Amino acid sequence: MNTQHDWFKILTKCKNNVEEAIKPHLKTLNEPQPDLGKGAGGDAMKPVDLAAEKAIVNTLQSHDISFSLISEESGFEKYGNNPEECYITIDPIDGTTNLLRGLPFYASSIAVSKKPVISEVYAALVADLYHDITYIAQENKGAYRDGKKIKTSQVSSLQEAVLGIDLNTYKVTEIAPKLTDLIQQTKHIRHYGANALELCYVANGLTDSFVDIRGKLRTTDVAAGFLIIKEAGGIITDPNKQPVNVKLDPKQTLKFVASGNTKIHDTILGLVKL
Amino acid sequence: MNTQHDWFKILTKCKNNVEEAIKPHLKTLNEPQPDLGKGAGGDAMKPVDLAAEKAIVNTLQSHDISFSLISEESGFEKYGNNPEECYITIDPIDGTTNLLRGLPFYASSIAVSKKPVISEVYAALVADLYHDITYIAQENKGAYRDGKKIKTSQVSSLQEAVLGIDLNTYKVTEIAPKLTDLIQQTKHIRHYGANALELCYVANGLTDSFVDIRGKLRTTDVAAGFLIIKEAGGIITDPNKQPVNVKLDPKQTLKFVASGNTKIHDTILGLVKL
Repeated sequence: MNTQHDWFKILTKCKNNVEEAIKPHLKTLNEPQPDLGKGAGGDAMKPVDLAAEKAIVNTLQSHDISFSLISEESGFEKYGNNPEECYITIDPIDGTTNLLRGLPFYASSIAVSKKPVISEVYAALVADLYHDITYIAQENKGAYRDGKKIKTSQVSSLQEAVLGIDLNTYKVTEIAPKLTDLIQQTKHIRHYGANALELCYVANGLTDSFVDIRGKLRTTDVAAGFLIIKEAGGIITDPNKQPVNVKLDPKQTLKFVASGNTKIHDTILGLVKL
Repeated sequence: MNTQHDWFKILTKCKNNVEEAIKPHLKTLNEPQPDLGKGAGGDAMKPVDLAAEKAIVNTLQSHDISFSLISEESGFEKYGNNPEECYITIDPIDGTTNLLRGLPFYASSIAVSKKPVISEVYAALVADLYHDITYIAQENKGAYRDGKKIKTSQVSSLQEAVLGIDLNTYKVTEIAPKLTDLIQQTKHIRHYGANALELCYVANGLTDSFVDIRGKLRTTDVAAGFLIIKEAGGIITDPNKQPVNVKLDPKQTLKFVASGNTKIHDTILGLVKL
């Protein structure tokens, strides 16, 4: 049974191997990066993305795990004799632009599920690769930062809160008016440019919510972060306060609000226009 | 003559002493922070802000420097026998909210000028306190990151560029429409929540521009960063493409666009509605 794997150990090994694999690429930051076409999720692929993906796949294979890969880069791939045993949804490098520019915010995101559905994720890791900080969670076993249990914030007022909001969209004329009331009442808005990591900030109580209603973010970016937030005590819904239960697929996008607590979540949903 | 001081050395000493002074405050992050009223710039003062300010003042005094202090916290103060010899404009901790929440982005900003006018700044330091990275510049001597000369980016297309935009304002209904065209054409928008540091990202070529047209940011936040950008080869104007030449004063605010190169600067100014 796949749930008998020691996922804390295996995912941590994946992270260590990603860190090793990307090192040569960090040294060539100032050189032009070859264009490798578009990945399955639609973004341009860079050598560092593929190096990280390969490190994750090789690590899983070295543990004799059969799995179906759902990757922002390669799309769907099957490995092993029984690839339906588990689904591994990854964004090998989330925040590749930050990495290539030298901005200290990029992550690797790995989610394990029984089925290719986001609500079925039962083990997850997001690694803050620049700072070498590991966020990890297993269903009903809590969320951890470098081995220490984490929980979400209880800040409930927008005046006090720090909110992540992703406004990066060409459809800003459509999206911005829906967020105006929220932005108007929020003192501290941030966007660090690596959404998987920003979800972990909510899980860790460094920020209070993350809002992305662009309908552009992919499941590969959030599959791991969602479990980590839930296991840390947070709440995630779509802007209509319905559960987010989409399939895991490199092309599948979603809209959501993720919060540390129900009170601020409801306040935000009340201000976001549908 | 004040210009004969070794400002690289003195400002670096200030930074070292700020780092020491804030250490005890970093250990009490999870405890409630006493409210010390509002600083001269209008923000709530925290013990860590005052500890950093005291470290800077003490360091300057230990070098027998006479100076007029222009601080986001204490406002105007005079030190020494000849306080008009130089003006020291500081934001002891820029990004206090980030620091208190554990977000790894906060800085100390120190600018030295002959007169209390932003164009007269001739030596400047911004310290990325979390990562212990020092940005420093002197007029006509270039800008440096940890001793290594830096220059701004030559990225000129908004499709490729990474832009910092500060949208944190209760006047968002007034400001957002002025930025819609710019946001629509820009792929990568960031806001890290420590503006002095984000100016250094432009200087260092990590981002391509920083846009703040809220009319809310204070001179104490940008006095140092402006010189560092200029010495790294960048350009700063107001949204009308006029020079920014305001007085240095804790209550003085400004609107500006700071860019790595003229081409992207002009593209941005062409998209920002006045």
